[in-house]
Amino acid sequence: MTERVPVRENVLKENDRVAAGLRAAFGGRGIFCVNLISSPGAGKTSILEGTLEALRGSSVRAAVLTGDIQTERDADRLRRHGFPALQITTGGTCHLDAAMVRRALDSLPLDGIDVLFIENVGNLVCPASYDLGEDVKVVVLSVTEGDDKPLKYPGIFRRAGLMLLHKMDLLPHARFDPAAAVADARRVQPDLEVVETSCYGAPGLGAWIAWVQRRLEAKRAAEPHAQP
Amino acid sequence: MTERVPVRENVLKENDRVAAGLRAAFGGRGIFCVNLISSPGAGKTSILEGTLEALRGSSVRAAVLTGDIQTERDADRLRRHGFPALQITTGGTCHLDAAMVRRALDSLPLDGIDVLFIENVGNLVCPASYDLGEDVKVVVLSVTEGDDKPLKYPGIFRRAGLMLLHKMDLLPHARFDPAAAVADARRVQPDLEVVETSCYGAPGLGAWIAWVQRRLEAKRAAEPHAQP
Repeated sequence: MTERVPVRENVLKENDRVAAGLRAAFGGRGIFCVNLISSPGAGKTSILEGTLEALRGSSVRAAVLTGDIQTERDADRLRRHGFPALQITTGGTCHLDAAMVRRALDSLPLDGIDVLFIENVGNLVCPASYDLGEDVKVVVLSVTEGDDKPLKYPGIFRRAGLMLLHKMDLLPHARFDPAAAVADARRVQPDLEVVETSCYGAPGLGAWIAWVQRRLEAKRAAEPHAQP
Repeated sequence: MTERVPVRENVLKENDRVAAGLRAAFGGRGIFCVNLISSPGAGKTSILEGTLEALRGSSVRAAVLTGDIQTERDADRLRRHGFPALQITTGGTCHLDAAMVRRALDSLPLDGIDVLFIENVGNLVCPASYDLGEDVKVVVLSVTEGDDKPLKYPGIFRRAGLMLLHKMDLLPHARFDPAAAVADARRVQPDLEVVETSCYGAPGLGAWIAWVQRRLEAKRAAEPHAQP
């Protein structure tokens, strides 16, 4: 039992090394990379389906890596929307790590990609510790999960740049105080941005998609030597 | 990285040893022990609140150990219902293990207890691997999480004896096929029992509470030398 901490530290150090390589690769190509993290069933895949469908008509070219313990279901769903999507099946591991992402990119060429969405394994705890080379971690909190989650799972909220308050269409049926959830999340991460979303009915995904496009443009403006 | 598997195996072997001691302690006292596992926000704490409130008027004496990464909120909620409840704050660890339960029992005497509920950390992955000495693992799947979860997170469904299909009051608003979820769960665990529950409106918690009482009586009947 005494070995646990050092082994975990070494694993995380090695992960950070691989993640730094990924970050450099994304930066060199001007790719904006989002690491999407939530509980199982918070709505990550549905959000990505709606996002890809909306981007289909724009100049932004997207790609998705989607992680799951088992099944190829999410990639099957995502591939219907006109962009490449690759499943990473972790076979029991409760999070994605940078090495899994690096291996997956052998089968998902980055050329011509503007935004890479990485959909993590559904887990509000472990994925928070693993840097995947992303520009930003986005935590999805659905209103059916309860407004007490930011203080109960502070790790991911502390590391996130954006929180999507999702399934807002179900708010009338849920016991959820959005103001309390936002206040608690900002107690652990004062700079956290918040966008309200839903896949069925208002407010939709428009504000989230606009946020992605703004962040992509900002990255391109800050790194003018990158492609295209 | 190559050390990871053996270390994990040793940790699990040590956990199994401690769990066997807990199981013997529960058995010797005729205590029926439930290990409740779900995603964050599936409704474990609310189910336990309703369960304790219902048991208050019965002859069954309950106690709760509730695990969280951070905060004492759940134990605060649970203590209002007339039974002892103790928080285990894991401080970052994504699951309860048997040693945490054993330590907690120093502060929660088992004498006179009939049913011990252990509310695990909200996580559909890691808690499945850790035996806590329980009689049964109960997985809670809320209908707002999507019916694809049993095949995407098979580990916990394989090890569970009962699945609570929860938040059934929200079914009219959710895109969830209960028959598909049950069929998929039974593909990984053919003997899985299923009970539909809700905390607000029908069907309520009655069938679940009756299930607990039947299992307690069956354990007492099978181990006649145990207390009360």
